[in-house]
Amino acid sequence: MSDTLAARLVEAVGAANVLVDAADTAPFLTDWRGRYRGAAQCVVRPGNAGEVAAVVRACIEAGVAIVPQGGNTSLCGAATPDETGRAVVVSLGRMNRILAVDRQNNTISVEAGCTLAAVQDAARAVDRLFPLALASEGTCQIGGNLSTNAGGVQVLRYGNTRELTLGLQVVLPSGELWDGLRGLRKDNTGYDLKHLFIGAEGTLGIITAAVLKLYPLPKTQTTCWLNIASPAVAVDLLNQAKSTFDAQLTAFELVSEASLALVLQHIPGATRPAAASPWYVLAEFSDADPAAVEGWLGEQMAAGAVADGVIAASEAQAKKLWALRENISEAQKIEGVSIKHDIAVPVSRIPDFLSTADAELAAAFPGIRVVAFGHVGDGNLHYNLSKPGAQDNAVFLASQAEVNRIVHDTVHALNGSISAEHGIGQLKREEILRYKSATEIALMQTIRQALDPRGLMNPGKLPGPG
Amino acid sequence: MSDTLAARLVEAVGAANVLVDAADTAPFLTDWRGRYRGAAQCVVRPGNAGEVAAVVRACIEAGVAIVPQGGNTSLCGAATPDETGRAVVVSLGRMNRILAVDRQNNTISVEAGCTLAAVQDAARAVDRLFPLALASEGTCQIGGNLSTNAGGVQVLRYGNTRELTLGLQVVLPSGELWDGLRGLRKDNTGYDLKHLFIGAEGTLGIITAAVLKLYPLPKTQTTCWLNIASPAVAVDLLNQAKSTFDAQLTAFELVSEASLALVLQHIPGATRPAAASPWYVLAEFSDADPAAVEGWLGEQMAAGAVADGVIAASEAQAKKLWALRENISEAQKIEGVSIKHDIAVPVSRIPDFLSTADAELAAAFPGIRVVAFGHVGDGNLHYNLSKPGAQDNAVFLASQAEVNRIVHDTVHALNGSISAEHGIGQLKREEILRYKSATEIALMQTIRQALDPRGLMNPGKLPGPG
Repeated sequence: MSDTLAARLVEAVGAANVLVDAADTAPFLTDWRGRYRGAAQCVVRPGNAGEVAAVVRACIEAGVAIVPQGGNTSLCGAATPDETGRAVVVSLGRMNRILAVDRQNNTISVEAGCTLAAVQDAARAVDRLFPLALASEGTCQIGGNLSTNAGGVQVLRYGNTRELTLGLQVVLPSGELWDGLRGLRKDNTGYDLKHLFIGAEGTLGIITAAVLKLYPLPKTQTTCWLNIASPAVAVDLLNQAKSTFDAQLTAFELVSEASLALVLQHIPGATRPAAASPWYVLAEFSDADPAAVEGWLGEQMAAGAVADGVIAASEAQAKKLWALRENISEAQKIEGVSIKHDIAVPVSRIPDFLSTADAELAAAFPGIRVVAFGHVGDGNLHYNLSKPGAQDNAVFLASQAEVNRIVHDTVHALNGSISAEHGIGQLKREEILRYKSATEIALMQTIRQALDPRGLMNPGKLPGPG
Repeated sequence: MSDTLAARLVEAVGAANVLVDAADTAPFLTDWRGRYRGAAQCVVRPGNAGEVAAVVRACIEAGVAIVPQGGNTSLCGAATPDETGRAVVVSLGRMNRILAVDRQNNTISVEAGCTLAAVQDAARAVDRLFPLALASEGTCQIGGNLSTNAGGVQVLRYGNTRELTLGLQVVLPSGELWDGLRGLRKDNTGYDLKHLFIGAEGTLGIITAAVLKLYPLPKTQTTCWLNIASPAVAVDLLNQAKSTFDAQLTAFELVSEASLALVLQHIPGATRPAAASPWYVLAEFSDADPAAVEGWLGEQMAAGAVADGVIAASEAQAKKLWALRENISEAQKIEGVSIKHDIAVPVSRIPDFLSTADAELAAAFPGIRVVAFGHVGDGNLHYNLSKPGAQDNAVFLASQAEVNRIVHDTVHALNGSISAEHGIGQLKREEILRYKSATEIALMQTIRQALDPRGLMNPGKLPGPG
């Protein structure tokens, strides 16, 4: 690091917050799963938006790239610097204040470094719900959730992070601070700039604070596990449930028998909630009359759509049902290596996607095991492949590009997305070029170039500079 | 018009769809209220997105500005050309096909020139709700709704037009077609470009088609008229209703006695639903148990929050209650000239806004009459002023700038918006410069310049070129 840059950064954030020793910087130079490794001149930890702006200006002067980082839980390497060691990592973790809670406006204002769990807790403390919920919620930071437009199981009812956001404060690639911290539900005064920064993976600026929407805290929840014959039945059932319960339907997850079997095999204490079935739905209703849910389920069973079903009789039982869904990734990890996909198609095309991708993969890779599950209510599946039992890990992983091609081509043919909720980062930076039109890629690059003409903001992430 | 441009346009859309005669072009050169008048070289009426693209390319070659126009119902002059007569108006009205309805994906794909009512009808035909609802719905076009991010009375439950949109097709200022017609609820593959075009008032391209969200059609609605003492009570009551009914609360409108009195005076058949009160709330619950609404209302009356209340006993009575709210603008028009504002503040600050603005206006303009009503659930009020009874119209209207200053300064001090749902257009182009930071204006202009370097897209609307 040049003496000038070092001096400017120390001036901006204080010497204690400019990390240069390898032991100090190491946790910031690799992602949580250890899939990506990079290097950096240093890691800086600003304490407020003004300090972030000063850091950005120092980096501009030095012509040094900036990698913003939150909880470092990206699944796509979006927050890990490249290997050149030229970049400065800006870690937002010290900026973890809840700035304000406006109970009557149903909003919370938070700094970017708040963990998602801290935001949820602050909402709950005033009898409100912040609905974003993710496996990594204790670690991930809201700034990262915003920058990747995080999803999760409640999107069906409450939308993605994007839909939960009313205002943002952002340090721009110019080092200027844009104050868009407004808690308004209607504001048609020009381009809606916040949407440009949400999901931009830190390439258009550094989100430093946000105003987020809060909702009434549900008073009761009814959780069911439903045996169904096929994904087509799941889609029908979803629409039946929506018609009957509308927004009281707060989750609708699809689980394949192959996914459940892995959980039963590898997760201690997991037990089968009902008879075996090719597919299952885990449905959650909030503030619905339990008798209405029971009646509806009875009708669906009478009509033959649901072969068997369990309504959780207690919160503990509901948690056990949710654990079956939430432990699929963990069980698959224990089982061995896997090739994962985070795809979305129109909800109506879920059955087509599964039948086509399953058949093509079975033909190309005999014995490959499909572990499909996810947010069918959003058209979003985690479509993961486990290797044939006897196959060598390396052989299986060598087929990754070919497997991806089959899965992603199938998604694309259905006008779907190859990254529904995880983003692009480094992981899908080349892959996405196959599926986006040249016009769309050019439009993104035009915007990136206009906002960051120096190409210093998180280079190497998303298609573009670096 | 140059022969070259004329030839290119005729080649693009056919001679019958290039209007040049004054009688033919007149309806396109003034807005529906006749507040804005402009001139144009011609009005072209393309029949599909390819023709729109050809028109844009022809205009680029000729260096001629383009004014996109839908149903021409803008309240801010956003679709009216300037007086120079140099522009070409592109009217989307012929592009009025419903392209697809995907019932199981809960989406509808429509061309930009569909009227809002046509979209609502196509949804209803498959037992679904397209929730956007506006006074002008029979005339306004969905492309215009998208370009202005239209709001309305159902935003509380379903969001603005922006939140109802999944995908867009846009002819860019370069004449290229961007096909983002995707019906996905999750798609994190780069910048969310659709949000850039929504609310951009035609300055970044011409929206030619969209994929919109559908919802279950509510089976029952319960409509109440509630007498309350003050706006502060309305905000409390809103939060009580949200906590109890969550998404079943689908509208929550505030009406002042002054507003109701004008309706009773000027609208034939309008009758007072209950005793007089300083303020009223019109609340609508969808698919809620009517007994639960009744019980809740009883509690609120027992607690003293609601002094008197009526629950509509029939659909006809519900319509009558809604008509009281919907006829306020019409009644105010009959009463005489008025100065109108479309403002938003955080919901919690509605009482502060009203008390401050009312007091400052009363001090500055003795006798001025405040007609305040609107979407209190969204923090959005139509804060209109009628002249003191005896005052001359011209004298009153001469005070408009000063009145605006008081109202908008009050809004700004509460971190609000001076255009909640109507947009900027020509009307607030200068005014908005007072309230947006230089950084925000510059950011908008950077984006506009990057996408439309020639400055040909709807110049003179929003701050920027022209």
